[in-house]
Amino acid sequence: MSKKIMILPGDGIGPEIVEQAVAVLKTADEKFGLNLEFTEGLIGGASIDAHGEPLTDAELKNAGDCDAVLLGAVGGPQWDTLDRAIRPEKGLLKIRSGLGLYANLRPAILYPQLADASSLKPEVVSGLDILIVRELTGGIYFGEPRGIKTLENGEKQGFNTYVYKESEIERIGRTAFEAARKRGGKLCSVDKANVLEVTVLWREVLDRLAPEYPDVELSHMYVDNAAMQLVRAPKQFDVMVTGNMFGDILSDAAAMLTGSIGMLPSASMNETGFGLYEPCHGSAPDIAGQGIANPLATILSAAMMLRYSLNMGDAADAIEAAVSKVLDQGLRTADIYTDGCKKVSTAEMGAAVVAAF
Amino acid sequence: MSKKIMILPGDGIGPEIVEQAVAVLKTADEKFGLNLEFTEGLIGGASIDAHGEPLTDAELKNAGDCDAVLLGAVGGPQWDTLDRAIRPEKGLLKIRSGLGLYANLRPAILYPQLADASSLKPEVVSGLDILIVRELTGGIYFGEPRGIKTLENGEKQGFNTYVYKESEIERIGRTAFEAARKRGGKLCSVDKANVLEVTVLWREVLDRLAPEYPDVELSHMYVDNAAMQLVRAPKQFDVMVTGNMFGDILSDAAAMLTGSIGMLPSASMNETGFGLYEPCHGSAPDIAGQGIANPLATILSAAMMLRYSLNMGDAADAIEAAVSKVLDQGLRTADIYTDGCKKVSTAEMGAAVVAAF
Ligand SMILES: CC(C)[C@H](C(=O)O)[C@@H](O)C(=O)O
Ligand SMILES: CC(C)[C@H](C(=O)O)[C@@H](O)C(=O)O
Repeated sequence: MSKKIMILPGDGIGPEIVEQAVAVLKTADEKFGLNLEFTEGLIGGASIDAHGEPLTDAELKNAGDCDAVLLGAVGGPQWDTLDRAIRPEKGLLKIRSGLGLYANLRPAILYPQLADASSLKPEVVSGLDILIVRELTGGIYFGEPRGIKTLENGEKQGFNTYVYKESEIERIGRTAFEAARKRGGKLCSVDKANVLEVTVLWREVLDRLAPEYPDVELSHMYVDNAAMQLVRAPKQFDVMVTGNMFGDILSDAAAMLTGSIGMLPSASMNETGFGLYEPCHGSAPDIAGQGIANPLATILSAAMMLRYSLNMGDAADAIEAAVSKVLDQGLRTADIYTDGCKKVSTAEMGAAVVAAF
Repeated sequence: MSKKIMILPGDGIGPEIVEQAVAVLKTADEKFGLNLEFTEGLIGGASIDAHGEPLTDAELKNAGDCDAVLLGAVGGPQWDTLDRAIRPEKGLLKIRSGLGLYANLRPAILYPQLADASSLKPEVVSGLDILIVRELTGGIYFGEPRGIKTLENGEKQGFNTYVYKESEIERIGRTAFEAARKRGGKLCSVDKANVLEVTVLWREVLDRLAPEYPDVELSHMYVDNAAMQLVRAPKQFDVMVTGNMFGDILSDAAAMLTGSIGMLPSASMNETGFGLYEPCHGSAPDIAGQGIANPLATILSAAMMLRYSLNMGDAADAIEAAVSKVLDQGLRTADIYTDGCKKVSTAEMGAAVVAAF
């Protein structure tokens, strides 16, 4: 039985980096007999240009009919003046929500070969390996009521609703406990329970789950302190779990600790194991089309896809080993380049990973 | 006419550090003939122990009748098991809201003498001087409806409301534009306008104010990117302005960039110039009573108080110069100690500042 992968290149550097990841997947397919089948679709600005909206219902259905989705990135200045309801990002929110991809896994790993890239001192970040588990289909991103209304005195008021129910917290909590169990056995849940009732419930549910995972040590931290601790001593963390909004902020901060966000993949999964895989970085419109973008985060996202959604761990290991090998060879795209290394293009980097298999 | 200052020592290290700040204020009073009058009150756990609540209405009124408030810190493990409604932090929220202290100014400054303390590389943070302007009496901290309810299917749901109206955004916006005008002329407004309608309104209002401040360059940044940029290249910022929740997170992250949060003061003001001044750090119950806490953030908060609320800029300058002098002398409390310096106690540090006048 073949496995169908939906490719959504998106905008900006998306098509360039996805092209390399697909080449790597095809190589893995040959070597490991994975029987992969590819189909391509539109999301973000690319879909707006073709269909007037950032993700059509038909394309959403196509994606859901596949076994996994590999996405590049969405967005760019040419769509920034559009009505907010149809901007590229809405395509991302629609596919996450439409396919129920509530579990967002964002590793922040410092590759030893790239230790210098961090803005933090080497002793603070060397060996960094954090996994942030972010709830992705609830919280204030999707809470109702929301909008902008006019008050009686004529002034406008904007409002959004931060909301979670127990079942939503429980399922992401389980994802996080299980991830911690397979890693260092430490889980830090991040909330603002001293101010926000919704996160009081969050904390309660996490505490209630804890006895089911006696091998995992659960702690709680306020979000402001978590932001500080990530800067001060990030290696204290193993797995962190939090809601959609805090997760957006903390996962980006954590990614940036490594100094090489061009290296970081992410997974967004539902309960069946179906998932969407994309690099942590954005569409980088300023360098799009120049062939200099770093394809490694997308290639590593493809590896995550094989491991988590397609149960092809060996092939995933092989891709990750190949990436490590090209780094050892000193090959660097511009974003991670340092003196003494060899600067390569997007295509050269992709080809090097293929060759390193 | 004398100026009345309300002293709220609070909990943990609060009393120790406030004692030193008061000694410094008294010295400034003598030297500059400031005619200061002090009165002391209870907040946080200290008030819970005395009155069963973290801030009584009477104490709130007392504070409001003064010209400014100097606060230590609140909270400690002995009150962590109380009902959330009467925990120490609620005293802080009540005084902010009760006195309308909407403008929270949080400088993140790296003292050249303490450059080594940062977890970031020296070239990334040397000379760092950011001011974060955080809205403090609105947003999701105070939005209604809020709470935890039981749904029809029996499961609980937690909810909070993130809400701002134009007038609230406008007044904090003006505070920020004016601060930027007096500093480097750059203002970065932080929002999540690609997802949250309330921050779409935020952005609109900031844009509308901009033409009134042609000498200030306004930019906008999404909060996830702001968290990244603070880690990657914090010196790109001059003044940042944002809502209550994002401000809580980003100001703590920014403070931690300096590595010496024991040095950072903050001001929380209303439109009349009345303000509450407190260190950025917390009550540090683990070291309370040992006489080793760093009093400098509180001393610098007292200087901010003289400058912003009492119009005594010269005395404020003198305090800040004295602090810089003791750092030059190599005096360090434990939290900022490095090899080759002289480790001093809370009281010794306070006395050194007094002597450096
Ligand atoms: C583009 C935006 C809507 C999105 C988010 O906030 O979730 C992005 O920042 C991310 O983290 O994937
Ligand atoms: C103690 C807490 C309620 C408070 C806040 O979140 O505002 C604190 O973190 C702060 O930033 O002053």
